[in-house]
Amino acid sequence: MKIAIAGAGAMGCRFGYMLTKAGQDVVLIDEWPAHIEAIRTNGLQVVDGDTTDTLQIPIYRPEEVHEEVDVVIAFTKSMKLGEMLEKIKAIIHEDTKVVCLLNGLGHEYTMEKYVPRKNIIMGVTIWTAGINAPGVARLGGTGTVEIQAVEEASGRAIAEELVAVMNQAGLNASYSEDVLFSIWRKACVNGTMNATCAILDANIGEVFDTTTAEAVVDQIIHEFVEVAHHEGVKIDEAEMKNYVYTASNKVRAHYPSMHQDLMQNHRFTEIDYLNGFVAKRGLEYGIPTPYCAMITQLIHAKEQILKVQ
Amino acid sequence: MKIAIAGAGAMGCRFGYMLTKAGQDVVLIDEWPAHIEAIRTNGLQVVDGDTTDTLQIPIYRPEEVHEEVDVVIAFTKSMKLGEMLEKIKAIIHEDTKVVCLLNGLGHEYTMEKYVPRKNIIMGVTIWTAGINAPGVARLGGTGTVEIQAVEEASGRAIAEELVAVMNQAGLNASYSEDVLFSIWRKACVNGTMNATCAILDANIGEVFDTTTAEAVVDQIIHEFVEVAHHEGVKIDEAEMKNYVYTASNKVRAHYPSMHQDLMQNHRFTEIDYLNGFVAKRGLEYGIPTPYCAMITQLIHAKEQILKVQ
Repeated sequence: MKIAIAGAGAMGCRFGYMLTKAGQDVVLIDEWPAHIEAIRTNGLQVVDGDTTDTLQIPIYRPEEVHEEVDVVIAFTKSMKLGEMLEKIKAIIHEDTKVVCLLNGLGHEYTMEKYVPRKNIIMGVTIWTAGINAPGVARLGGTGTVEIQAVEEASGRAIAEELVAVMNQAGLNASYSEDVLFSIWRKACVNGTMNATCAILDANIGEVFDTTTAEAVVDQIIHEFVEVAHHEGVKIDEAEMKNYVYTASNKVRAHYPSMHQDLMQNHRFTEIDYLNGFVAKRGLEYGIPTPYCAMITQLIHAKEQILKVQ
Repeated sequence: MKIAIAGAGAMGCRFGYMLTKAGQDVVLIDEWPAHIEAIRTNGLQVVDGDTTDTLQIPIYRPEEVHEEVDVVIAFTKSMKLGEMLEKIKAIIHEDTKVVCLLNGLGHEYTMEKYVPRKNIIMGVTIWTAGINAPGVARLGGTGTVEIQAVEEASGRAIAEELVAVMNQAGLNASYSEDVLFSIWRKACVNGTMNATCAILDANIGEVFDTTTAEAVVDQIIHEFVEVAHHEGVKIDEAEMKNYVYTASNKVRAHYPSMHQDLMQNHRFTEIDYLNGFVAKRGLEYGIPTPYCAMITQLIHAKEQILKVQ
């Protein structure tokens, strides 16, 4: 299967590495010059525990790719998705499936502007990865992938083929009957931990140990659940709370990606695709979402105060 | 007039200094050992621009004062008011007037537990001051004081006497016909600037320059105005917004006291007497106050994360 990974950050490198190792024909697409240069010169270095593997894998800037692919797996930052799809339209042909594995909400609306609905596959993954340096990805841990075709009549067969390909690569993939539920559930976890840790400049354990975290977290979950319901996604609020608090206990020392983006690296955050999406949709539906709105406003204020880029 | 200043921080020192210079019989009451020791050893040093004045003024710990006074002027931190009044009850006799010049809301309810309503005088001041070191107060700028007796029938005459005494000391005092309005207006200014600057770790100009500050500030003002209305205090929301934005432009480089307390000195904040008071009363009245509630919860979380004392 000819696969393009659009966005070769930590997760893109992991998927590209595992799929290439399993015999697929993979190209990486990215815009980070030092990363591209390093992979072209030394191959992709993949660190997993004590071992480092080197993989020769083609990597291109979006402007450099022209050859049609069977599947594009999108792993950009949320705010870069549309721009990336626009730039790589030369490789997206009539039957090219585009799989969205980004964190966050509302990407299907962005995808629809560039890809016919029959070719859109939405997904979510709990694999993790990191970047140690340009050209050097860090694995560790295990995960799963769920995907589902937006239009099952036309897309399910190929999506299931992709599930098989991913499983040959050890990615623990499955075809989901309700991937939006999984996407919303993951976004809700991120929506409670990312913004609070970023704005309070603390890790998950520090935030969740405070006496007031529960009031904040519970209200954010409530707003996610209410808006999800209006989007046709049924989430049980009590189960969701249990899921969030259980998850928070397993990653107490972790600084979520939004803390890394905002506080550590002074980069734009993905808040508009988490709490910001809920607040925006809440406004449209007439559902009160004040906590999601306020924390989105505070995060954007902090971005500007820190002069992020 | 025999006056005790309960709480000899920056503002207590300013008032104590100005009233003593005008011939009043003033004692300071405070609990900061180094400050007490410095004033007893060297007198109170008062820095105003390029000049430093030294004033011999008695200063006591609350447990050390026993002699009845005519007036107590309370200048403690908000959360210390009740404790201070309890500790100095020996000097508060049947006719002793107690004047509250603290920032924040709801102090009249604390006062009532220790002082008969007929002796309570509520007030607000826009004088400022600082502490350079133990025993060293910093003046600068000018200000005004407004006071009003809670029970005018019994308290107005003495309150007006106190206004005259303060004016002899250059304090620009006036008897207010609606001091709660002035208290709420000042609290609303503080409620928009203090918590936002503290949680965003920025000065007023940096916060108010962001594109999202207005949405946060406007909603906080709305919540203050709604709750004030239920407390019998009429504030025009449009005028209040204009007042806040005008004020913010004059103090752009300033880090509000809550930023100093929380981020600079890792001390407990007065949030429960600003946004926290509005959120609590909002809950009681059934008025939605989500922004005041959330920012109070975030500030308390940050207090705990920073292990303030």
